[in-house]
Order: sequence, then structure tokens, then C-alpha cells
Amino acid sequence: MSKQIVLTGITTSGIPHLGNYAGAIRPAIESSLSENVESYFFLADYHSLIKCQDPERVRESSKAIAATWLACGLDPEKVTFYRQSDIPEILELNWVLTCVAAKGLMNRAHAYKAAAAENVEQNSADPDKGVTMGLFSYPVLMAADILAFNAHKVPVGKDQIQHLEMTRDMAARFNHIYGEAFVLPEVVVDESSMILPGLDGRKMSKSYNNTIPLFDTEKKFRKSINKIVTNSLEPGEPKDPDNCTVFTIYSAFANKAEIEAMRLRYKEGIGWGEAKKHVFEYLNDILGDKRQKYNGIMAEPEYIEKVLVAGAEKARAKAAPLLKKVKNLTGISAIK
Amino acid sequence: MSKQIVLTGITTSGIPHLGNYAGAIRPAIESSLSENVESYFFLADYHSLIKCQDPERVRESSKAIAATWLACGLDPEKVTFYRQSDIPEILELNWVLTCVAAKGLMNRAHAYKAAAAENVEQNSADPDKGVTMGLFSYPVLMAADILAFNAHKVPVGKDQIQHLEMTRDMAARFNHIYGEAFVLPEVVVDESSMILPGLDGRKMSKSYNNTIPLFDTEKKFRKSINKIVTNSLEPGEPKDPDNCTVFTIYSAFANKAEIEAMRLRYKEGIGWGEAKKHVFEYLNDILGDKRQKYNGIMAEPEYIEKVLVAGAEKARAKAAPLLKKVKNLTGISAIK
Repeated sequence: MSKQIVLTGITTSGIPHLGNYAGAIRPAIESSLSENVESYFFLADYHSLIKCQDPERVRESSKAIAATWLACGLDPEKVTFYRQSDIPEILELNWVLTCVAAKGLMNRAHAYKAAAAENVEQNSADPDKGVTMGLFSYPVLMAADILAFNAHKVPVGKDQIQHLEMTRDMAARFNHIYGEAFVLPEVVVDESSMILPGLDGRKMSKSYNNTIPLFDTEKKFRKSINKIVTNSLEPGEPKDPDNCTVFTIYSAFANKAEIEAMRLRYKEGIGWGEAKKHVFEYLNDILGDKRQKYNGIMAEPEYIEKVLVAGAEKARAKAAPLLKKVKNLTGISAIK
Repeated sequence: MSKQIVLTGITTSGIPHLGNYAGAIRPAIESSLSENVESYFFLADYHSLIKCQDPERVRESSKAIAATWLACGLDPEKVTFYRQSDIPEILELNWVLTCVAAKGLMNRAHAYKAAAAENVEQNSADPDKGVTMGLFSYPVLMAADILAFNAHKVPVGKDQIQHLEMTRDMAARFNHIYGEAFVLPEVVVDESSMILPGLDGRKMSKSYNNTIPLFDTEKKFRKSINKIVTNSLEPGEPKDPDNCTVFTIYSAFANKAEIEAMRLRYKEGIGWGEAKKHVFEYLNDILGDKRQKYNGIMAEPEYIEKVLVAGAEKARAKAAPLLKKVKNLTGISAIK
């Protein structure tokens, strides 16, 4: 049986934080090591233009994300790791799918509906105020990302389930009109996927400005851990591990025995300073090597570029024949 | 002073007819011969997918249109003659422009509004019934066609003026957000451009099914001319040349003196049979050589392909550096 193709995109509009690591990077890299899958990972830089019009941020983010994944163990020899904008076939396919996608489908997309609803709420005369075609049509580009490699499985968050349904809709429509070209991809929603709390206890997210950057300097990393909001219980007073950001973050990294040991120390009234010190040291131990790797890779941008260029070559070798087939089915081919 | 770049696209969803020749092909080729312009002509095959989901028709149309323009004197050494789908830079630029185009702009596009209005008229619950994203977003692809070469002038019919305004809007928005990259193209509307009547006297158009194919066999061409609808006046009765399809078609090809001579013969009561015979012979004289060339080219598809591939190379040499600049301005570039 041929391997299952699994595809993951990472939008290049931020710098990876601890929550990204525990919730996405670590599990994705782990599953990429399985022998039964053929993994595709890409920097979704063309997607980032939808929300981010700051060129320096896109540039820095692309570099930091690529370096992070490599430092965390993504093996570019085993997986196909590329930059979306290096694969023109995706953008061509995007247009072909644009021609089979119903506008009504996009009208119902969550992100667009949310933007329009907000305009209505704010009594704007135009529900489309500030909405770009990028926001409106990005499910089509996402479909192109997936169908360009005929991915079987796409691991996504719950908010992306709808987009995968749209991808299946476009793929099925194309197949129906022009003949079989596309696999209908399956969505994989990891219900157990870890959501790390941020400094203030809410979900760690750059939009809440509560993140702990994954690869800051050791000093800054310690400072971040120390900034985690806790309650005002004194040392000696028993503490509740189950409603504690420090404990939750620790649990995302420690093994069962370590977690139980820490739970006991909470009951015994460990002081916040000591708990944070322990967590910092524990995480720093785990992440220290990776941080060093990261810094080394960041200092060698030509290495990152080489990896991405090689990845693009691998990716295009897959996407180009499929695009040729797709174009041929629509009537776009060499003159004969 | 540098030459003015003039760009013309031809949608590949039909076979050229006499009206296309007199109204578009002949004047465009004439003006491409001027020393002051750098002309770009392209087969808009990705546009054709919006309206035409018949692969054979797209394929046949691409071949026939390319052969027609070449037979009619388009000089691929002097102009840049290419197939849209051979220029991936256009599709990449299409996405970049998608991210700066306001959705509200597309909401106001004539073609989309007409489709939505028709749905409303037919009491459809959904004004977007049957509307694809291709129809909705094609002004963005058109903008990419034009801006990929920073064309100064785009000759269009009146129905396309709005799209050119949208192109200017997207170009100006991009320049404003990211820095100068695009020329704001000027629309050129040829008010005097010839509109030939078809067999039934209405505008010659494939949607009216009243066309005279440009390069049928001589026999079929004669038959077409004979099928032009005239009134029932007998030979000898004076006829009105100004409300006569036969005369109008003749006038689109004959010189002034010839037109005046024919006008006189109408007054003198020329019979319809004789008038049609004269017009057929006159047009056949003019088009005969071109028809022969056309047939020769159609029999040599590898020649057409060679011309288009060479054209694509020329076009990409222009579009690629511009796209690189555009991407770089948005933050999409090699890792440094």
C-alpha cells in the first residue's frame, strides 16, 4: 500500500512560542517520523499576506519558523519542507479551482462571515468594509495547497474543519466536470491536541499578547516563566495544581511520574518562586539544546535557504505533473 | 523616451469570425506595427475557464486563434505573443493582488452584478446561484495580466472600462501599502472601432449564432455571404445601402472610391444576388491569401507551439524580475 500523504501549513506571520511547540510543532514532527506517512510541511507565506502587510514581519517570521522546525527535529531528508511561494503550481491550481468553486461556498466561510458580522454590529453601511479578496477567497488557496499534492490527510484545528469540507467540495466538482484528478482529503482533528495557557492563563496566542517565545535567550526565558500570573497564596499554603498555569505548562513537558511528584509538592505548599524555578530549569533543560541549534541555524541563513530550495524542488517534482494533468483536462495544453 | 507598452488579451473560447477580424484583429495588428509601441498579445486561456468548461473547445480555440493572428500578419519577432497559462508569474501576481483588492470592488463589477440581478429577477433565493469564484474574481486576474508587464495602455471595449479602473485601483493600493511597483495603466477605448453586423443584421457575435467564420473554406464562405438576410426588393429597384448588412460588411473592407461606386449601384438597383457575389469575390480576394496561410499554419501545430513557447520566454523575462520585486516588497524573499 502506498504511504498516506499528510500535509501541514504554517502561516508566516509570527514567531513560534511555547504553545505552538507543544500543540503543533512537537506532535507534527513526531508523526512525521512514522514510516507509514509521507509528510509535507510548508511555510504558508502567500497566506500570510492576507493578514500581515508588514514585509519585515513576514520575512522574520519565515526565517524563524523554518529555523524552529529544523531545530526541533524536522528532517528535510525524510519530509518535504518547502515555501509555498516557491511552488508556482499552487498558484496556477488556485486559479483552476477558483473557476470551479461556487461563490456561495465562500459566502458561508466562517472567517468571512465573522468579518461581515462585525461590520454589521458596528453599524457599518457596508458589511464588506475592510474585507479583502484575500480574506474572502483564501479557502480556495488552501484547497490548492492541499490538492497540489493530493494529500490524504490534513491535521487541522477545529476552526479549519469547514475549510477542509470546502476543499473536498472543489475537488469533487473538478473531478465531476473534467474527470478524476484529485483525491478527496480527509480532515484529521486531534481532539486531544494540547492547548497551552499563556502568561495570563488564557490560551497562549499572539493575539492575546501573552506568549512565551520558544527560543528567547535563557535570561529572557526565565523572565517569561517568572511573569506567569499566579494567585497570592504564600509558601507553605497548599495549592491547586489543576487551576494553575505554571503546573499546566509543566505537565505539557514532564512525564507522568514527574507530574505526580509536582502535584504532591503543590499539596505540600511549594512557593511560587520555587515552582517557577523548577519549571524554568526543567524546560530549559529540554529546550536548551534545541535553542542552541536554533541560534546556530539562524546564524546560517544560507543553510535554511538551501534546505527550502531543495524542498521546493522535491515538491515541484510532485506538483508539476499533477498540474499538467489538470490543465490538460481543462483544455489547456500544448497545441497539437 | 521608452516605448509605450500596449497589451491585448484574447479569450480562447471561440473561433475567429469576420467581425473579430474587422473590429479587433486587423486594427490591433496594424497598431502593433508602429515603432512607438511594444505590443503584448496573449491567449487568455485561464480566463476562458470561467465561461467554458468544454476542454476540446478551449483547445481548438487556442489553436485557431493563434493561427488566425499569425496568418493575419502578427509578427512574433516584433511583438510578444504568448499563452497566459505559460506565465506562472501572472498567477502568482494574481494572488498578491487578491490580497490588496477590496471585496467591495468586486461586488460592484458589471459581470457579477448582471449575474446576480438575473438570479433575483428569476426569483432565486440565492443571488449567487450558479456564480463561480472565477466570474466573481476575474477582474483580479485581468489586473494581474496587465500589471505583470506594467502595460501603459490597454485597448478595450466599453464594457471593459470598469475593469481597467479596478486594475488601477489595485495597482495604486499595492504601491501605497508596499511601495512603487506598478504603472497605473490607461484605458484606450476606440470609439470608432468597427462593429460588423452578422447574418441577421444584429452585431456579429457567437452568442447570437449569426457569425461568418473568418477562415472557412471558400465554398462555405460563399454560402455564408449568401445567407446574409436582405429585404425582398427585386433587381432594378433602388436599394438603401445605409441599412444593408451586405453593404456594411463590404464597407468594412473596401476603400472610399469602391464604397461610393457600390453606393451608386445600390441606387441603380443592383440585385441581391449580384451584390452578394461582388462582396464575396471582393472579400475572398482580400482574405484568400490569409486563409491559405491559416490552413498552412493549422497543418503545422508544432510551428504554433514553437512560436508560443518562444513568446512565453520573452514574456517571462519581463514578468519574472517584476514579480520578484513585488514579492520582495511584501516580505516574500530568500532567507537572509
